[in-house]
Amino acid sequence: MTFESPIYFDFAAATPVSEVALTAMQPYWSEYFYNPSSPYAPAVSVRRAYEAAKHELAVAIGAKADDIIMTAGATESINLALTAATDAHLVTTAIEHHAVLHAADQYDHTIVAVGRSGIVSPAAIEAAIRPDTTLISVALANNELGTIQPLRDIAALVANVRASRRDNGDTTPLWLHSDASQGIGQIDVNVARLGVDMITINAAKCYGPKQVALLWRSPRVTLKPIVQGGGQESGLRSGTENVAGTVGFAAALREATAKRKQESQRLSELRDTLESYLREHCPQLVVTIAGKKRLPGSLHVMVPGIDAERLVFMLEAKGVLVATGSACAANSGTRSHVLEAIGLAPEEADGSLRLTLGRTTTEQDVLVGGEAIVEVINTELQRIAR
Amino acid sequence: MTFESPIYFDFAAATPVSEVALTAMQPYWSEYFYNPSSPYAPAVSVRRAYEAAKHELAVAIGAKADDIIMTAGATESINLALTAATDAHLVTTAIEHHAVLHAADQYDHTIVAVGRSGIVSPAAIEAAIRPDTTLISVALANNELGTIQPLRDIAALVANVRASRRDNGDTTPLWLHSDASQGIGQIDVNVARLGVDMITINAAKCYGPKQVALLWRSPRVTLKPIVQGGGQESGLRSGTENVAGTVGFAAALREATAKRKQESQRLSELRDTLESYLREHCPQLVVTIAGKKRLPGSLHVMVPGIDAERLVFMLEAKGVLVATGSACAANSGTRSHVLEAIGLAPEEADGSLRLTLGRTTTEQDVLVGGEAIVEVINTELQRIAR
Repeated sequence: MTFESPIYFDFAAATPVSEVALTAMQPYWSEYFYNPSSPYAPAVSVRRAYEAAKHELAVAIGAKADDIIMTAGATESINLALTAATDAHLVTTAIEHHAVLHAADQYDHTIVAVGRSGIVSPAAIEAAIRPDTTLISVALANNELGTIQPLRDIAALVANVRASRRDNGDTTPLWLHSDASQGIGQIDVNVARLGVDMITINAAKCYGPKQVALLWRSPRVTLKPIVQGGGQESGLRSGTENVAGTVGFAAALREATAKRKQESQRLSELRDTLESYLREHCPQLVVTIAGKKRLPGSLHVMVPGIDAERLVFMLEAKGVLVATGSACAANSGTRSHVLEAIGLAPEEADGSLRLTLGRTTTEQDVLVGGEAIVEVINTELQRIAR
Repeated sequence: MTFESPIYFDFAAATPVSEVALTAMQPYWSEYFYNPSSPYAPAVSVRRAYEAAKHELAVAIGAKADDIIMTAGATESINLALTAATDAHLVTTAIEHHAVLHAADQYDHTIVAVGRSGIVSPAAIEAAIRPDTTLISVALANNELGTIQPLRDIAALVANVRASRRDNGDTTPLWLHSDASQGIGQIDVNVARLGVDMITINAAKCYGPKQVALLWRSPRVTLKPIVQGGGQESGLRSGTENVAGTVGFAAALREATAKRKQESQRLSELRDTLESYLREHCPQLVVTIAGKKRLPGSLHVMVPGIDAERLVFMLEAKGVLVATGSACAANSGTRSHVLEAIGLAPEEADGSLRLTLGRTTTEQDVLVGGEAIVEVINTELQRIAR
């Protein structure tokens, strides 16, 4: 299996593992492979490396290691977070990832509509809160549109509802969970500044290994384990710890945090260059979400009436890899629920491309890739016009 | 963090990742890192590599890839397998791993007692089956004692119960699940020959990466996902696939299967050498489980009245790593539930060592390690006698 190094505009689907993360993991495969629960010193060293990695992950998001639960991916973190809803009611939005929406299906829940902006309205969230609502789940940044959600505003209203419940002697809790997988490494993710009670972060989206994620939860939040066993992770997630993966995640997050400000600036410039180029050379192209309230590396565009899936394959032939929607939706042949939710017409949704830039994206990539995108769009427009 | 290469007699707790598995994973970190659900050719290649690895895993156990669900470890596989019990009744044994026992706690269940032999009695299993029993879970080999269970006999009686239910027009299913994590690579694990309906296998116990396991289930078995989301693994286990881990697992299992017969022979000879040496030089030592019905690399011994935890640390000082019980129990300071279950007196259980040999164990290890074990036992016996 070989293919030339392509121009990759799909960092929201997967990121390569960075050299730093890879190097950090290396000793834990065959040399320090011990079970961290074993009592002898070499295993205790492995345990310490694991705890140190958790500590580093915690510090990176302004949290304590004791409040972090390591999981095998954002999907598992989200499913675990949602157990905080107990048997009560939860509120989420129509543009959440399927992991949230499908996990929410197991609870009494309300899906809040989101408008054309792709930005969740705090007022709409507030209106959906019922007396028995115990959990709200809103992603920090949307995985298709790249829109950054007003989490602090939502956190503020949650605090108000909590205060008012307290004043009324009502002990029903209300927690705010956010899946920050798409924001990490591009925007500030600090649990105190965001005001969340739980946060999910995925190593696979910040140049760490796949199948490694964390759930941070405020110590006040009570969770119900979905996997029972040896009692690891304070009994909330049993199974021998993923030492290599956790160490790799910590290294990846350290690197992403160190590079964040500079990288965000660089990505937003590259993204703006790409956006301007596409707008200029392709008048039929609409930028789905413009402005500042989106991730620096995100550009969602559409050419109404065009078949974006054809574009994906035409671009692939030119060595440019782009997405129509999230990787999960992309392969299922169904229309993106996110684009439907924000009210795009079918011909707009079907003509959408998600372009996400990342650490290995160069100016050259943007120039060559932009040209290729314009070319295939024009080819398709001519084909349709015939 | 550095320590000299020790003599390792704790392969039941963790195995190093083999060179073959490590090499197989390598391309999937930074080069073929694509999301296997993305539509473009490089991602499709990654998908194919993933499917090929699942196929190889399936073939190794005489199964079909479609019936395999990849998980993040044996604990998760077991928790998923037990959902087949639905809301009915399940039967398991007192010597199962905590993953089974704690997952079983969520169901109406019966724990079958196991005698001093450490071998599960099929008759005792049969006696525990109620009209509403839907699931039986018995590990192929015990993780502390190394005892190999008569799974075929249990499968045969399950088949009889099923036939008799069918004859009576009773549609209540009855499934047999086995955690074969400890047996794989040492004894034959073929789902048809064992006659099981579900099997759990862990990469971490056969020289593959940690946090990678599979659950095979007969297509007749209905499971309930414990993690909801993007719908991967036929909707039974959502989350972006662990491509590197699965490819590494397949390579590890391929290697373990190819080496199995020769390696089993080699390990059982080394084990017998160690056993004879210990018996000969330490008359107070009792071999907890003798004979052929145990894993080739397993040797469980006890010196009643001695504090095995002290032995572990004394041996560690001599560069020999051994366990008192399973890694999970070892660190919790509680007495092994397995040893209690088979009726060992507290002073027997507390004086127990689990010695498990593996691929890197040499004759020299056995000689040097055996000597060290005798030495520390004698030192301790003298200390106690004083």
